[in-house]
Amino acid sequence: MTITCDVAVLGGGTGGYAAAIRAAQLGKDVVIIEKDKLGGTCLHKGCIPSKSLLRSAELYAQMKDSESYGIATTGVELIFPKVQQRKEGIVDKLYSGLQGLMRKHKIRVIQGNGRVIGPSIFSPKSGAVAVELADGEMETIVPNHLIIATGSRPRILSGLEPDMTYILSSDEALTLEELPRSILIVGGGVIGVEWASMLHDFGVEVTLVEAASQILPAEDEDVAKELRKIFAARGIKILTDTTIIADSLVKGEGVAIRAEQKGQPIELQAEKLLLSIGRQANVEGLGLENTDIGLQQGFIRVNDHMQTTEPHIYAIGDCIGGLQLAHAASHEGIIAVHHLSGEPSHGYNPLHTPRCVYTRPEVASVGMTEKQARAKGHTLKIGKFPFQAIGKALVQGEKEGFVKLIADANTQDILGVHMIGAHVTELIGEATLAQVLDATPWEIGSTVHAHPTLAEIIGEAALAMDGRAIGL
Amino acid sequence: MTITCDVAVLGGGTGGYAAAIRAAQLGKDVVIIEKDKLGGTCLHKGCIPSKSLLRSAELYAQMKDSESYGIATTGVELIFPKVQQRKEGIVDKLYSGLQGLMRKHKIRVIQGNGRVIGPSIFSPKSGAVAVELADGEMETIVPNHLIIATGSRPRILSGLEPDMTYILSSDEALTLEELPRSILIVGGGVIGVEWASMLHDFGVEVTLVEAASQILPAEDEDVAKELRKIFAARGIKILTDTTIIADSLVKGEGVAIRAEQKGQPIELQAEKLLLSIGRQANVEGLGLENTDIGLQQGFIRVNDHMQTTEPHIYAIGDCIGGLQLAHAASHEGIIAVHHLSGEPSHGYNPLHTPRCVYTRPEVASVGMTEKQARAKGHTLKIGKFPFQAIGKALVQGEKEGFVKLIADANTQDILGVHMIGAHVTELIGEATLAQVLDATPWEIGSTVHAHPTLAEIIGEAALAMDGRAIGL
Repeated sequence: MTITCDVAVLGGGTGGYAAAIRAAQLGKDVVIIEKDKLGGTCLHKGCIPSKSLLRSAELYAQMKDSESYGIATTGVELIFPKVQQRKEGIVDKLYSGLQGLMRKHKIRVIQGNGRVIGPSIFSPKSGAVAVELADGEMETIVPNHLIIATGSRPRILSGLEPDMTYILSSDEALTLEELPRSILIVGGGVIGVEWASMLHDFGVEVTLVEAASQILPAEDEDVAKELRKIFAARGIKILTDTTIIADSLVKGEGVAIRAEQKGQPIELQAEKLLLSIGRQANVEGLGLENTDIGLQQGFIRVNDHMQTTEPHIYAIGDCIGGLQLAHAASHEGIIAVHHLSGEPSHGYNPLHTPRCVYTRPEVASVGMTEKQARAKGHTLKIGKFPFQAIGKALVQGEKEGFVKLIADANTQDILGVHMIGAHVTELIGEATLAQVLDATPWEIGSTVHAHPTLAEIIGEAALAMDGRAIGL
Repeated sequence: MTITCDVAVLGGGTGGYAAAIRAAQLGKDVVIIEKDKLGGTCLHKGCIPSKSLLRSAELYAQMKDSESYGIATTGVELIFPKVQQRKEGIVDKLYSGLQGLMRKHKIRVIQGNGRVIGPSIFSPKSGAVAVELADGEMETIVPNHLIIATGSRPRILSGLEPDMTYILSSDEALTLEELPRSILIVGGGVIGVEWASMLHDFGVEVTLVEAASQILPAEDEDVAKELRKIFAARGIKILTDTTIIADSLVKGEGVAIRAEQKGQPIELQAEKLLLSIGRQANVEGLGLENTDIGLQQGFIRVNDHMQTTEPHIYAIGDCIGGLQLAHAASHEGIIAVHHLSGEPSHGYNPLHTPRCVYTRPEVASVGMTEKQARAKGHTLKIGKFPFQAIGKALVQGEKEGFVKLIADANTQDILGVHMIGAHVTELIGEATLAQVLDATPWEIGSTVHAHPTLAEIIGEAALAMDGRAIGL
């Protein structure tokens, strides 16, 4: 069978479904092709399930400390299967909401494995999609525009393939039925530190290994240092500048593996090993070879409007690389749809895209790190303010961390905002809007921030640039 | 003794000390006159202690529901004296920090009762301050500029004077050594609803009485209705359109009092009565009669730059009325200091000042309510989005509430932002910056909001105005 439509979206993850919804809102006839479940990594194997586990971990940690809030308990016990059940309940609820959205917007969802085809009897242009349905039947989708949103999967090291017993990627870790006594987390990026935070809060002995010289290598050095200090004080063992030797893995009672720390051999052991060394784009088996779509370092190459080298085919989300974040994907999806519809739209700007890490405490940022800004030749003006001078942070009992604003000393342009502390993933919204609207530190500093709130720290950090913070 | 200085601040509350610090930062020689404790109502009898109690109440409520997060406990018990101790520890810590700030900025703090004097041998202008020190000695402060920041106190009804046993204002309620079994809260404004939320969470039987037709009479009607619905579902008894008859009070085992609800007589009883019917400016006994400073409805009259009718005397904070919020006071203090120093400064704009209510769930707003905007003749465009369609709200287990954006349909100016839900007192920061920077709904809606965060709701509400929200 052949289905013609205005827009086909290959992959129904966050980027794909956001693009599909906006296209439908603009009056387009839309088809989504999804081989697994609508919602993709974010809903089923990423953000949502992990944040649900992190929420239980956070409450568990707070409850163990409840005496300091004037609340006594006799025994706080984690029932891990119930933690997992809660997570599944949340995912199910959002999944069912998403299916409702598809019906509301009259988006057809074709369940099956899609493959882009070249010029054919169906269309003189490449970009039709042959879909193999679950029952083995084939369907051909012939759109005016195609959006490729096939996402990514955990990157695996040869010799460390997930086996569920010894080696896990984040996919398997999310389905654990019971907690290990100890875990070795290989890779100290966003996913690695989130699991380290959560599992430590759940009572697991955690060792975190990172090849670079700092955990969260993409984040500002000061923030990464602060997180390391907090983690270390809590008892998480952290090894940076450390590379594991994959083929030295021995499976026995647990895992044992050799590594090198600055040239020195070391031995690492734990009950399980979690591999979190980044995510690999899903670009194989899609039929890209039938098109003129270009790749670049394993990702689909696009311009600022998300067009591939075939202008009627767009690509968005993890499969094009970049920040590989759910909200980047949905934003890219909307940019693509606006572009193909002739709607006004800015091009994509990664410096206006916030980044969030849901550790305890949280990390959030937007724009350039100090190092990146210096490397670009900017003369910097920096404002930094600690949460321990914010009344609300004391009230909350969460006074770790700080906010750091980086501006160009000559132009007053804000180049980057870096935060570590409680609820900073919510506070980064204001900083992002400030970036988008090109606000100066003076404007942020003279905006009234409600008292007592954690958000006061943004105003104070902006004022601190000129030595005018009130609370420090 | 006589002390001359550039700036004297009469009253060392949030407004007063912020003004003093900024004046010192601008090189001024500054004196603060404070009759009680630096930090004023906010630190000692308002925001900080109440938010500390609310934090314990929040955690206590969450812990009673911890099973749903996968955490079992055998008995969760509130130890109220420890809740109070924690509160006092936080206040002490901030108080000591504030004293450190005074030393750092070389601000002299004179402890005593100040009274403004008219033209005298000390100065040909009014505005010197005669201070009666604790030891009975007098000191005269002769400043170039005076800032009056004497704050406010709870308004009391005749016949309902606080006696600590039966009748409390918020001042006395903060020092309770044990919780009553039941309480009648008279006044459903910000303070009344915060106490209702907190005390109910602590297990107290709460009846809340409000004379107007909605609780939170200054807030948007939809928000007030939602809070009422949530409170009622939780078991808080709410009576609106209800006026108590103060002289019918009978003290016995508890209190009994008569009231009228829409003309119908009713009887109300509880162990204690908390009076929260607003705050009265401290303008008596200050010697204002020695000056040409004008009053208006019991408040000191000022212009947009906080000048009284004597141009070298400014007044800020609760004693000038308006929003009577700590952050409004400090902002007004900074405006006054900038004005008297010739620094650039905008005049005060109450529509750019956020308002926060720390109930569970929280309420926050900036700008006009729907009613106010319609009364001004605007044709409105409204965007509303519920937290239950926000993934992070489900993850947090806090899915009540919504965000409502109000814009002028012709100009696209945002006129008001109204929020009810978890952590909205933090989210209002972004909305306030949007107001200050005159952002359009389109700009807010096309700013990338991190996923999964509660802050996504701001973008969605902005998009909802044009039927372009993604998640609903």
